[in-house]
Amino acid sequence: MITAREALDIILNNVRPLGPITVSLAHSLGYALAEDIVADDNIPSFDNTSMDGFAVRSDDIKAAPVVLTIVEEIPAGKIAEKTLKSGQAMSIMTGAKIPDGADAVVQVEWTERMDERHVKVLRSVQAGHVIRLAGGDIQKGARVLERGQTIRPQEIGVLASLGKEFVQVYRPARVALLATGDEVVPLNKKLPEGKIRDSNTYTLQALVQECGGEAISLGIAEDIREEVKSKVAAGLEADVLITSGGVSVGKFDLVIDVLKELGVEIKFWKVNIKPGMPLVFGVRDTRYVFGLPGNPVSTMVTFLKFVKPALRKMMGHRAVDNGLKVQALLQHEIKKQDGKRHFVRGILESQDGSMIVRSTGSQLSNVLTSLTKANCLIILPEGKNQFSPGEKVEVELL
Amino acid sequence: MITAREALDIILNNVRPLGPITVSLAHSLGYALAEDIVADDNIPSFDNTSMDGFAVRSDDIKAAPVVLTIVEEIPAGKIAEKTLKSGQAMSIMTGAKIPDGADAVVQVEWTERMDERHVKVLRSVQAGHVIRLAGGDIQKGARVLERGQTIRPQEIGVLASLGKEFVQVYRPARVALLATGDEVVPLNKKLPEGKIRDSNTYTLQALVQECGGEAISLGIAEDIREEVKSKVAAGLEADVLITSGGVSVGKFDLVIDVLKELGVEIKFWKVNIKPGMPLVFGVRDTRYVFGLPGNPVSTMVTFLKFVKPALRKMMGHRAVDNGLKVQALLQHEIKKQDGKRHFVRGILESQDGSMIVRSTGSQLSNVLTSLTKANCLIILPEGKNQFSPGEKVEVELL
Repeated sequence: MITAREALDIILNNVRPLGPITVSLAHSLGYALAEDIVADDNIPSFDNTSMDGFAVRSDDIKAAPVVLTIVEEIPAGKIAEKTLKSGQAMSIMTGAKIPDGADAVVQVEWTERMDERHVKVLRSVQAGHVIRLAGGDIQKGARVLERGQTIRPQEIGVLASLGKEFVQVYRPARVALLATGDEVVPLNKKLPEGKIRDSNTYTLQALVQECGGEAISLGIAEDIREEVKSKVAAGLEADVLITSGGVSVGKFDLVIDVLKELGVEIKFWKVNIKPGMPLVFGVRDTRYVFGLPGNPVSTMVTFLKFVKPALRKMMGHRAVDNGLKVQALLQHEIKKQDGKRHFVRGILESQDGSMIVRSTGSQLSNVLTSLTKANCLIILPEGKNQFSPGEKVEVELL
Repeated sequence: MITAREALDIILNNVRPLGPITVSLAHSLGYALAEDIVADDNIPSFDNTSMDGFAVRSDDIKAAPVVLTIVEEIPAGKIAEKTLKSGQAMSIMTGAKIPDGADAVVQVEWTERMDERHVKVLRSVQAGHVIRLAGGDIQKGARVLERGQTIRPQEIGVLASLGKEFVQVYRPARVALLATGDEVVPLNKKLPEGKIRDSNTYTLQALVQECGGEAISLGIAEDIREEVKSKVAAGLEADVLITSGGVSVGKFDLVIDVLKELGVEIKFWKVNIKPGMPLVFGVRDTRYVFGLPGNPVSTMVTFLKFVKPALRKMMGHRAVDNGLKVQALLQHEIKKQDGKRHFVRGILESQDGSMIVRSTGSQLSNVLTSLTKANCLIILPEGKNQFSPGEKVEVELL
């Protein structure tokens, strides 16, 4: 059986980024940039003052205290009409452009207003004092943001400051969801004895939404070859098809048979992990298929570990992995016997300056409530089967 | 000046949760539950098998190997028609209900099919073997999820498994955004000399969106009392009004004067932090006003530290704080001189099993690009002014 690392490499080597679309800046949150952003002006575009005060010539106030004549007031957003001459000062507001002739600003706290026309400067300052220089944040011509960066609120702020009303981003992946199994019943139908609710379609919709993709539900396919085939064929119209269910050996065979019939090349089936071992990944041209095991926890964990990085790569994000990994001290012993890589639902906390983590309890793969208690997955690598209290383990935030 | 902790306490003691709304499960991601969820059935609702195999009476196979007569096949989702009698077995698929009369399942790997009607069971098993009991995930009557829990994909899965098509959640906060200042120009207008782009409205829209709120932009108010007043009055129709700008002392006075005229009680003005010191918080009945300083970094940091917890409390989330705090080893010296609590833009990484963090560089509050490089804020508490390389510091993930 291949390892989790090998499986992820196969997936990432196969999936290709989707094409770009143009979106307005106000609707760009969460997308990845599909273009480099180069500043076509300095930010700020002019020297300005970072404090309220008086624009002066620093030479004039070397022998402070000195009285200067106020010749103009410059509110933020306005340009001085005059050029500042020796012996003069201009009252200036935070953010306003430094007038020609001035080379420093003295903050209002270091001055004393004598009358309407005169100010006493109490302290001398160096040339450049409290002046923010043009280009101090962004230099004209600089590559400010790069293709593949994820757009967060701060990137939106930078794009706005550069005057970008529209940006090119990678388009969202269309992800078709197909639940399989005679035992699965949709939410809006009565639940007959011996059957269970379709929860995976809802979980997967939410997971796809969190990734920035567009989920399309194909409903539930009964375990009839022709029905599975027609729904899988429809799903192959999307960028990605995710099937869930078919936990039993026989059912997986049916889904895999149908995929092969429809021209999907199966890249792997089964990964050395728990939960989620019977994971399937296939490719047909630029369409990708993930067959996820049907137990709710297996479905969610395999999505997070394998489908999410694929979707992030398709949607252009340079960082495809699952965010920050931290090291934490395990609070209790964990044993496994199968040598697989385990993803254990865990609770990570900060305690007295250390990160500590414990299991949520039962790790049965049908117990989804354990994931509602979890805020992380504890990664227990292949090969090693015993983990002791106080041992450092790797943890991924959920 | 009050501390960050005192300011947050004042805010959280004033804001009240908004009312509940009903949303369909498919649209519930990110909301907080406004109701406790009690299971009205066991999950699973019936004893079932976790593996493909044969349902048996454990007494029958004590002397395994033993040949049993196959009397029925039970696919998942189907109910056995017969009751299992001594000497009999039923073929059963993962997830299917255990038939009456059986008390164990032997997985297919431990059996040998003799012919159409007979199976040889190779190993004996205990009663209950590979049977998942009714209520093993959720017991009927249990409070599965609580009011105030944030709905993530796994909570959606649990709600679906309980058959919940609709859930009660706290309604999204309507958040009015008002930029102020003659120097601020919207994206769709030409930028005259001496003026700057309105970036805060875009950053704040995205931040509000991330919190699950509904942002309403009121545009830009020029520094004219009547204009500020009419826009602030409009903003007070929303649940929350956020103003940004007015970084200079004189302008803050104008916004605060207008707020008071319109009946807003100012709860505090100025907090002992950097960036973001001139933060204002006011209340009028159930409407809340945040006056954020206009420098882009100050705007974003004060939003994250003060507005976000308020919005989360209003939208019913039990966990109002900013997610996980971690301890990390500082990579270089940081000095400050003002004794304030500093929020330093930082880059947090995992290295050889330790969390390490460094500053992004310039901490000038107009330099928003520093936040595009950051993945965390380093918290430097009040009072202490020197932090050494290798020292443990508290870090909040962005």
